[in-house]
Amino acid sequence: MPNPQIILESYKKQINKSLESFFNGEMLANRHKDIFFRNSLKNLKHYHLRSASKRIRAILVILGYTLFRKKATRQILEIARSVELIHSSLLIHDDIIDNDKLRRGGPSAHYFFEKLHRKNYIFGEAKHFGISMGILSGDVGFAEAYRIIIESHFPENLKTKVLTRFNQMYFDTCYGEMMDVVHDYQKKVSFKDILEVYRYKTAKYTIECPLQIGAILAGQNQKQLNLLSKFAIPLGVAFQIQDDVLGMFGDEKTIGKPVTSDLEEGKKTLLMVYALARANKKQRQLLMKYFGHKNIKISDLNKVRQTITETGALKYCHDYAKILVSRSKKALVRLKKANRNTLFLLNYLADYIIKRNY
Amino acid sequence: MPNPQIILESYKKQINKSLESFFNGEMLANRHKDIFFRNSLKNLKHYHLRSASKRIRAILVILGYTLFRKKATRQILEIARSVELIHSSLLIHDDIIDNDKLRRGGPSAHYFFEKLHRKNYIFGEAKHFGISMGILSGDVGFAEAYRIIIESHFPENLKTKVLTRFNQMYFDTCYGEMMDVVHDYQKKVSFKDILEVYRYKTAKYTIECPLQIGAILAGQNQKQLNLLSKFAIPLGVAFQIQDDVLGMFGDEKTIGKPVTSDLEEGKKTLLMVYALARANKKQRQLLMKYFGHKNIKISDLNKVRQTITETGALKYCHDYAKILVSRSKKALVRLKKANRNTLFLLNYLADYIIKRNY
Repeated sequence: MPNPQIILESYKKQINKSLESFFNGEMLANRHKDIFFRNSLKNLKHYHLRSASKRIRAILVILGYTLFRKKATRQILEIARSVELIHSSLLIHDDIIDNDKLRRGGPSAHYFFEKLHRKNYIFGEAKHFGISMGILSGDVGFAEAYRIIIESHFPENLKTKVLTRFNQMYFDTCYGEMMDVVHDYQKKVSFKDILEVYRYKTAKYTIECPLQIGAILAGQNQKQLNLLSKFAIPLGVAFQIQDDVLGMFGDEKTIGKPVTSDLEEGKKTLLMVYALARANKKQRQLLMKYFGHKNIKISDLNKVRQTITETGALKYCHDYAKILVSRSKKALVRLKKANRNTLFLLNYLADYIIKRNY
Repeated sequence: MPNPQIILESYKKQINKSLESFFNGEMLANRHKDIFFRNSLKNLKHYHLRSASKRIRAILVILGYTLFRKKATRQILEIARSVELIHSSLLIHDDIIDNDKLRRGGPSAHYFFEKLHRKNYIFGEAKHFGISMGILSGDVGFAEAYRIIIESHFPENLKTKVLTRFNQMYFDTCYGEMMDVVHDYQKKVSFKDILEVYRYKTAKYTIECPLQIGAILAGQNQKQLNLLSKFAIPLGVAFQIQDDVLGMFGDEKTIGKPVTSDLEEGKKTLLMVYALARANKKQRQLLMKYFGHKNIKISDLNKVRQTITETGALKYCHDYAKILVSRSKKALVRLKKANRNTLFLLNYLADYIIKRNY
């Protein structure tokens, strides 16, 4: 069996190359003469292309296809890059919502425009300029992502199926994101609600939909797509749980965003909500002292980390993610006529998702 | 010839009915159980359906079709409502960007959520909650609008053509909007730049694309579509100029938003930029005293109105809009095999666009 890491890495490179050629050539924005617009989008290009991205969604489109066909074609790569593009665009909106200034090891899109304003403009608030341009940059990205699929050369009925699935993914993600936003402003959020957000905002979006798009393009029927869901949903929830763990325990340089940001934003992650539910009075006081407060120092963060560990929340998240991943792997076995090499890669990816450190 | 106003009014009613049935039934969001999400979208429904909307885009889809076919079918109405839906959704984003609290005689979407926060939530800033939910409500609306077309029952190749045009419209509008945002923050903006924004943000979006979508569905070729552009673009620019005039000289109750908002925001409209260019020193001082300043009183507004009139800017805008409209009407004559009744309606609409008071 070939080295899975090398294969996945080569897919990632192909995706990055395909995205780069898109930004340098085919992108609609390149047809416009307005210098500000073109320069802004050039800068956004760096945002979209920044190498810290795992490209997991694009890779899953390819794997969803190669599960049932020999080799990913150039056309499949194009659809994969469309999925990556809508992801980056959603992140642009997400960063506004979460007030995140850093993404993939560089400035988030709206923050890029905020800084641009400080340098170049006279009127208005820099922050509002950043938000405005961020909203529109996300919107422009959506249009570009849809266009790639609309103008692709698949048979028309297949294209409609892919568009339907792609559009449903976009909707589901916004739904999950909306619930997530509401939770941030509420006092209490149940485990059930949190897991519902993870299902929509992460599992369907990051794993299920990309895989299914690949499988649709490989001509698979609904029954096979349903089996892929059974693999994808638990794995996606595990992915999010691991993301939460990294958002609290990760290394700033590897995760590409401030490691204090989840804590400062008061993000109601499964990790944090579980810790608060299990904390004794003293532990609870300590957690609440920092939860949702600004300017957290690394020494404060370390206290929070220790307390979360003491409540058992870290172990709980690790264990739960492991259970989910093993549930995922079982579903893979039931797929009909699946390519063994790709099955091996999906199993590898499932393990990687809970072991990864970024 | 039948009364054009009655026909257009009846189209508007049909569109509103079609939109209402969408919000009550087919809308994806209705499939979700989350109570907050459903209630929020119910409230957004009122936003989308509010009767102050002219539904001009939807009507133009119908007219683009009936120019070449006898009667608009139910399927055409569905595409027309999709165009309305993406418009409302873009307005949601636009209102965030422009800080508008009022739209179509009720609260703008993000402001609705801002107020909801003040009533119901404990954590976080109400304003940021409003912006976050507004961004996502717009995004959800985009997904719903694309879905209507993707799931429509037109022959697949026709559907791809419509999707391509629809997606291009969405992109062009964001492009125009981006330029517009940048202009708001710059010191100087040329007439040429302003007209470029009008072309993208209004003419292509409000007139050209809806008409062309209707004509595409009626099987028209590129030559005919180009003739429609020659009608649509000047008319759309005239429409925006009239909008600017109403934003300064209109009646608050009829235009559905504060009549001081364009002035307070310092909007660089053709009207205002022309007035500033032609103003003498005293007039310029008066205009700059209020331009871009908050809490404008009606008595201040009246001074600004008078000064704008004195510089000749109001007359210039009226005259220019008239020239544009007559240029539009001439293009209509060159259309092949066009339905006389619909031509009559388009001519009527062209006149209405510069005579309207809302």
